[in-house]
Amino acid sequence: VTTATAAVAGHVDPVASPPRTLRLALLGFGSVGSAVARLAHDSPLHPARVTAALVRDVRRDRGPASQGIALASDASSVLASRPDVVIEALGGREPARSLVIDALARGVPVVSANKSLLAWHGDEVLAAAEAARTPLRYEAAVMAGVPFLCAFADRPFAASVHGFTAIVNGTCNFILSAMSGGRATRQQALAEAQRRGYAEPDPSSDVSGRDAAEKLCVLLRHFGGWSTTPNDLDVEGIERIDAEDLEQAREFGGVIRPLVSAAWECERPWAIAAPAFIPRTHPLAAVQGVDSGIVIRTRYHGVLTFGGPGAGPEVTAATLLDDAVTAARPGSSFACAASRRPSWDAPATSWFVRVGAARLPDERDTADLLGSHGVWLKRTSPRDTRRGGERQWALVHADTKPRIESALAALGRAACCDTLAIRAMEA
Amino acid sequence: VTTATAAVAGHVDPVASPPRTLRLALLGFGSVGSAVARLAHDSPLHPARVTAALVRDVRRDRGPASQGIALASDASSVLASRPDVVIEALGGREPARSLVIDALARGVPVVSANKSLLAWHGDEVLAAAEAARTPLRYEAAVMAGVPFLCAFADRPFAASVHGFTAIVNGTCNFILSAMSGGRATRQQALAEAQRRGYAEPDPSSDVSGRDAAEKLCVLLRHFGGWSTTPNDLDVEGIERIDAEDLEQAREFGGVIRPLVSAAWECERPWAIAAPAFIPRTHPLAAVQGVDSGIVIRTRYHGVLTFGGPGAGPEVTAATLLDDAVTAARPGSSFACAASRRPSWDAPATSWFVRVGAARLPDERDTADLLGSHGVWLKRTSPRDTRRGGERQWALVHADTKPRIESALAALGRAACCDTLAIRAMEA
Repeated sequence: VTTATAAVAGHVDPVASPPRTLRLALLGFGSVGSAVARLAHDSPLHPARVTAALVRDVRRDRGPASQGIALASDASSVLASRPDVVIEALGGREPARSLVIDALARGVPVVSANKSLLAWHGDEVLAAAEAARTPLRYEAAVMAGVPFLCAFADRPFAASVHGFTAIVNGTCNFILSAMSGGRATRQQALAEAQRRGYAEPDPSSDVSGRDAAEKLCVLLRHFGGWSTTPNDLDVEGIERIDAEDLEQAREFGGVIRPLVSAAWECERPWAIAAPAFIPRTHPLAAVQGVDSGIVIRTRYHGVLTFGGPGAGPEVTAATLLDDAVTAARPGSSFACAASRRPSWDAPATSWFVRVGAARLPDERDTADLLGSHGVWLKRTSPRDTRRGGERQWALVHADTKPRIESALAALGRAACCDTLAIRAMEA
Repeated sequence: VTTATAAVAGHVDPVASPPRTLRLALLGFGSVGSAVARLAHDSPLHPARVTAALVRDVRRDRGPASQGIALASDASSVLASRPDVVIEALGGREPARSLVIDALARGVPVVSANKSLLAWHGDEVLAAAEAARTPLRYEAAVMAGVPFLCAFADRPFAASVHGFTAIVNGTCNFILSAMSGGRATRQQALAEAQRRGYAEPDPSSDVSGRDAAEKLCVLLRHFGGWSTTPNDLDVEGIERIDAEDLEQAREFGGVIRPLVSAAWECERPWAIAAPAFIPRTHPLAAVQGVDSGIVIRTRYHGVLTFGGPGAGPEVTAATLLDDAVTAARPGSSFACAASRRPSWDAPATSWFVRVGAARLPDERDTADLLGSHGVWLKRTSPRDTRRGGERQWALVHADTKPRIESALAALGRAACCDTLAIRAMEA
C-alpha cells in the first residue's frame, strides 16, 4: 500500500517514508467531524486515525464512528493528548478561535474548514501560526472539495493573481440550479440541499450571501494578501430571485449564478458577493448544482480555472485529511498574516433588472424616466402577465449600484413598481 | 517585496525566510530557456537568476537575455557551477535524459517541461531522483501554464484518481478552434500557431497525436502510478479533420476537440489520445484556442476540473520557475518511479462518422450494410454536395474501434466511399 500511494501521488515524503500513522485530534464531532473519523479509519491511502475528539456531550451515543476515540468535553485534555495535527471542525467564530490559537501556541499544526474563523479572525490566527512557526492550513474553507489554494502556495509566479470570479456557495448554486426550468420551488430546493448535507445548519447564512462573503474574505487574503472582513464588502443574497427571473435569464442567453468577484490591479480595487447574470459562454455558467468553480486572473499564467464539489461532509473531510497529511510533513510551510487593508469599492457593471406592478407604465415612459437618471436600456423582454400583475425584464448598460438603485427607486415611486436589480457580469 | 510575496502566496518558507537568491542553471537556451532567463531577471516576486546555460554555440549573439549568464557548450562545466536548481529546457529525449540523470546524481534538483523525457524515460529519470533523494519536478510538462499536478502530490485523498479526460495539445486545439466556423484553413491555423510560439518546432508531432500521447503517459504516471510509453497506446491525429466536419459537429450539438482520456478502475483499463466529438455541454467544450483543460475523476473528491493556458514560452517559463522555487525548498519531496505496467485497451464509444464519394449509395443500403457488421446509426445529417461529390455524416451507437473500422472498410469497398471515424465521448 505504501509504495502504491507514493507512486500515485507522483511524490513521496523524503523523511517519513514509509509514513507512520498520523494521530489526529478532532475539535467537533458533527457531520464533518464524524466524516473525518470514518474516512481516516477506512482509507487505505495513508495511515491516519483520530485518537481524541472534543464534543459537547461525552455521553451521547455516536455509533461506530467514535470507536477508539477518546471523547472529551474539555479542550485542554484533547490538546494534551499530543496529536500530530488538530482538525478544527467546530465551525463558527468561538470557541474555534481560542482553541486554534491554543493549539498553535503548543506547536501543534492545525487544519480547518472554517471560513468564519479565517474571515473574521484571519489576522489573529495566522499571526499565531507565524509566531509559533507552526502550519495552519485551510484548503477546505473555500470550494471544499477542490485542492487549489495549495497550488498557489510556494509558487510565486502563479501567485501573481490580480483578480478572480467564483461560485463558492454550493447551497445557493444548488438552489438556483434546481429552480431553473421550474423544476423546484425555492423551499423544495433548500430542503433538498439540507437533506443532502450541503446547506449550513442556518440556511439564512447561505441565502443572504454571508457565507459567500466570508469565503470571499478568505480568497482575498490568500490571493491578494488582503486583510478584509465581510463588513468591508458589498454583499447581496439570492432571497428575491424567483423561477421567472431564471427563465428570463435564459431568454437573454445567460444564467444567474451566486458569484464572488474581485479585482485589485485597477484604479479602484473592488470586491463583491452577489448573484449575477452571466452569459452562457462564461466559464462559470457550466458550474451547476452543488459544484463550485473559480476563474483566477494572473499576471504570468493568464486565466486559470478550477472546479469541483463545493460542499458536503465527505469531500470536506477528504480535504481536511489531505491538509493534515501535508501539515504534518517535516518542513511544511506555515501560513502568514496579511497586512494590507484596502477600501473595497463595488464595480460599475451591466444589470439584469425586473420591474413588476399590477399595471406597468408605458414602456417609453419607463425608458424616459430611467434615462433621466442616466440609466440606459440595452435589451428588454416582452411583458409577462402570468401572475395577474405585469412583469418585465431588461438588461441595462454598465452603471454603479447607487445610480441603478436611485433610478429604480424613482421608478418605483412614480409608477408603484416593485423592482429588482441583479448584476450582469461579462466573461 | 519579500513580505508582500509571502502574504500573497498565503504561505512562507519556514527556513529560508527572507528567501535568498536562487541560482539557476539552464540546459538549453531556445524560446523557453530565454523566457526563463528574462522572467527570472524581471520578476519582483522571488529573487532568482540564471547563472549558467548550456548552449550549442557559445559565440551566437543572444541579445540582452543572456547578459550575466555563463554560456557553455559542455554540460559538465554548467553542472560544475553548483546551481541550486537545473532547469532542463532542451526538449526531446537525448541529451536531456543523460544530463538530467547526471544532475540528479550530483544532488542538484531538476525541473523540466519535457514530456518526451518523462514519457519515454520516466522510469529511469525518476529512479535516479529517488536514488539521489533529490527533487525532479515536471509541472510544466502537461498543461504548461496550469499548476495542477502539484495539487495532488502529498494529498493522498485527492490522489485517489481513477480516470481523466483532457485537452493537452494547445496546437491542435488552436487549429481546430481556428478552423471552426470556416475562419481559417488548417494551413493558416498552423502558421498562426507557429507565429505565436504555440506549435512545436516539428508540427507533425502535434497533429499526429504524438505530443498528446507523450503527455498522456505523464498523466498516467502521475495520477495512476502507471509506467507507460506512447507505444502502448491507441493514438490518432487530427490530420483528416476538415472544416466541414467541424461544421457538422456543431449541427449535431457538439464540437471536436483533441482529447486524451483514460480510466483504470474498470474491467479493462483503457487509454486513448485522439480527436473526439463531445456534446456542447461537456466541460471541455468550453476550452478553446491554445487553452488546455482536464476533468479528473476521483474516488473521494468527485469530479475536479482544471484549465488554463496549455502552451507558450512565457507561461512555460513561469511554471518552470515556480517548480524551481519549490524544488529548492528544504524538505521538498522528490518524485518516485512508477512500477505498474498495464495493457491499455481502447474503449467502446459512440462514433462521429463521415462518408464521402462521387456519388453515395442509397441511404437505406448504407444503413443495411453497416447493420450487417453490427454498427447502428443513431443520427444522420442531410447529404452535402458542395464539393461536387457527396458527403454525409452520422453518429453511431457505441462500438469498438475494430468493429467500426471493418464496417467502414466494407462500405468503402462496396461503394467506393472515403470514410472517417472520430470517437464521440459523453460528458
